[in-house]
Amino acid sequence: MSRIDASDTDFPIRVVERAVAASDLPTLTEAVAPLSAVQVVDVLERLDRTHRAVLYRVLPKDRAMVVFEALPPTLQRDLLDGLREDDVAALFAGLDPDDRVELLDELPAAVATELLRGLPDRERELTAEILGYPTGSIGRRMSTELVTTHPDLTVAATLERLTRHLDDAETVYTLPVTDSHRVLVGVVSLRDLLRASPESTIAEIVRPAEWVLATQAAEEAARYCAQVKHLAVPVVDAETRLVGIVTVDDALRVLEEADTEDQARISGTEPLRQPYLTTPVRRIVRSRVVWLLVLALGATLTVQVLEVFESTLDGVVTLALFVPLLVGTGGNTGNQAATTVTRALALGEIGSRDVVRVMLRELRVGMFLGALLGAIAYVLAGTIYGYDIGLVIGLTLLAVCTMAATVGGMMPLVARAVRADPAVFSNPFITTFVDATGLILYFLIAKAVLGL
Amino acid sequence: MSRIDASDTDFPIRVVERAVAASDLPTLTEAVAPLSAVQVVDVLERLDRTHRAVLYRVLPKDRAMVVFEALPPTLQRDLLDGLREDDVAALFAGLDPDDRVELLDELPAAVATELLRGLPDRERELTAEILGYPTGSIGRRMSTELVTTHPDLTVAATLERLTRHLDDAETVYTLPVTDSHRVLVGVVSLRDLLRASPESTIAEIVRPAEWVLATQAAEEAARYCAQVKHLAVPVVDAETRLVGIVTVDDALRVLEEADTEDQARISGTEPLRQPYLTTPVRRIVRSRVVWLLVLALGATLTVQVLEVFESTLDGVVTLALFVPLLVGTGGNTGNQAATTVTRALALGEIGSRDVVRVMLRELRVGMFLGALLGAIAYVLAGTIYGYDIGLVIGLTLLAVCTMAATVGGMMPLVARAVRADPAVFSNPFITTFVDATGLILYFLIAKAVLGL
Repeated sequence: MSRIDASDTDFPIRVVERAVAASDLPTLTEAVAPLSAVQVVDVLERLDRTHRAVLYRVLPKDRAMVVFEALPPTLQRDLLDGLREDDVAALFAGLDPDDRVELLDELPAAVATELLRGLPDRERELTAEILGYPTGSIGRRMSTELVTTHPDLTVAATLERLTRHLDDAETVYTLPVTDSHRVLVGVVSLRDLLRASPESTIAEIVRPAEWVLATQAAEEAARYCAQVKHLAVPVVDAETRLVGIVTVDDALRVLEEADTEDQARISGTEPLRQPYLTTPVRRIVRSRVVWLLVLALGATLTVQVLEVFESTLDGVVTLALFVPLLVGTGGNTGNQAATTVTRALALGEIGSRDVVRVMLRELRVGMFLGALLGAIAYVLAGTIYGYDIGLVIGLTLLAVCTMAATVGGMMPLVARAVRADPAVFSNPFITTFVDATGLILYFLIAKAVLGL
Repeated sequence: MSRIDASDTDFPIRVVERAVAASDLPTLTEAVAPLSAVQVVDVLERLDRTHRAVLYRVLPKDRAMVVFEALPPTLQRDLLDGLREDDVAALFAGLDPDDRVELLDELPAAVATELLRGLPDRERELTAEILGYPTGSIGRRMSTELVTTHPDLTVAATLERLTRHLDDAETVYTLPVTDSHRVLVGVVSLRDLLRASPESTIAEIVRPAEWVLATQAAEEAARYCAQVKHLAVPVVDAETRLVGIVTVDDALRVLEEADTEDQARISGTEPLRQPYLTTPVRRIVRSRVVWLLVLALGATLTVQVLEVFESTLDGVVTLALFVPLLVGTGGNTGNQAATTVTRALALGEIGSRDVVRVMLRELRVGMFLGALLGAIAYVLAGTIYGYDIGLVIGLTLLAVCTMAATVGGMMPLVARAVRADPAVFSNPFITTFVDATGLILYFLIAKAVLGL
């Protein structure tokens, strides 16, 4: 029925994996039967390409459709490669328009055009509508198959209308209410409809709608849907005409992807866009290498800074001992600030008008942290290496933490201002910048205190 | 109606903020009226404590309730402090049982007991039921107000039953089906009910249910709910008896919190648990200082390692120039691997049984990356500082990247094995470990190549 605990459910999955590896089709068909669609997807995400195709082919037709819809688009594309042409066309026509668009983005243009041409008219129309919105917008992810109602209709008439669309609408629980020009005037929920008397009109029970613009960024719109806690939120164009609906499970999927991307980029890697175990090693390398190179090139700054102070370093080799410690602490402080501010931006807690407030807060936080760490370092380093070295380390920590927290806190806001993704822009660059600046502060303070 | 673009909606919000600051209650009441509940929450999250109380008090009673439910528990607690006792009791009784439990966890024990005592019997019972599950489990976050049905009931009888609970049930769109011992046998959706003929029995249309255990971790259960794409998932006890239901918007809220926590911990800070601008500076400092201290203490390892090699460093000062670059690249490589694997774990793409597969993959990825960076460094550093130094840097990069990716990839799995949170455990510790180990590798290679 469901996965409750790992030991319980791993067993049938292992049987399937073994049967796939042995190409033992009868055992495989039998072993797959009791698995839920989610479990089949879990197994598919762990198999290599050939084995994935083998497993997919033993699924009965109706289950195959459900499973296919739940797969990430990259794996969908892989599977299509292995199927016969008419199978592909049937599979493609069976998808919801929004899922179809996601898959189209993965396919080579020629294949995509061919598949679109094979669709029934109405399906092609629905798909083309979604394709008209920019990549990354919520228009690309919304559903266009929906039931609407009008202010003058009665509750009974609306319920009847809804009953006719039980099978094809994405949701029947939230009904957008539109006027005669398709302009959104509100929503009614199925719960409202059941609660009202059948002869009352929709105008009497309609509620004001929360809505999102079709051209809005998908992540922003999805977060808004999550925030308002509705099961579905209407999507409108610039004239507030209804063009689609975002259901909460579409929103969940968008947020899941966005969070995966953010986390990847905070640590300087490109998101993989497909399950880890099925991603070829060379693609993992590719997702990381550019960032590593850029960061390493940035880090050559530290080599140059150290070179400038090489004579200082040659004179007091003890100073070299603390370089990784100081540079590391600065990087940590900056990353902490950047992550907090990036998250607050994503959740809409702050906006670009808060630049000064954020800067002052992070300046104070950084000074507090620096004073604390500096005091401890002064005592510890002072006792072991002498109090002049202790003073240099302590003062440097104060300066570096203040600078790092302020810069770290500002960076996501700067990124937002130049319309870059705060998560991409911030953490990796902060480390590089703070490393180099921190070293300069270190040697300037050392020169002043030690009189070099 | 909704926020569409920042310039549009910022205006009324700014009017409210100005009226609050001036304690101009008539203007404030007027300015708040057109705002949606979500917008009011946005404003409240940006105000300080006193102003927050002022704004909250001008809200009409029914809106105040909706707004209160949407606030994070820490802000709810703050608001309660400023209200009269009977207001508090009324507000508390009006909350859903699951929201009530979240708030109770924030309040001092004495206040919590007092508030619980004041509840009507049935409400207290529902709340106590939820309180019985461990903190962090989905049992704490589920709804206990639900409509169920039985296999022998007819569709018509079920619809009638549902109609009686339109106002108090958390959801009427997914109905768990239980037998006479409250054991879950399946679910029917309202859509199924509307589609079926009124005289057919539930047994004829029931579908197998996906369910979660009440004692399961909230994040894991929420991710499962998101994955199965149902609007609500029944929650059962160890005997598969129905105890509650998780709706998709509960799941969204849990996931949002979990992702905020993960991102905070990846950069070594504690999550704030309340909006950034309303968090006092001293609390932000507290959320970061422990991690900074732990990491800085860890970094003293690097001081000790460098001390061991001080004579080597004294002989060839050029070696000191590359310390931050090498240490930084190692840390970056390790963090990339850890983040990818942590995310794959969270999404259920890999489990503890995949240790060897993950290790071999990361070993290969690390070697690739190291070979590439090492080759570039050999040429660049070789040209400038001589080819023996270039060889040392190149070989060190190869060794450090291989080690860092492998260790970084293993760490989240180790964390999972010792039942620690992979996000807490991994990235900050990797940096410390990789820094120290990287330096040792560096000087050993330098000694071997340069014959020191």
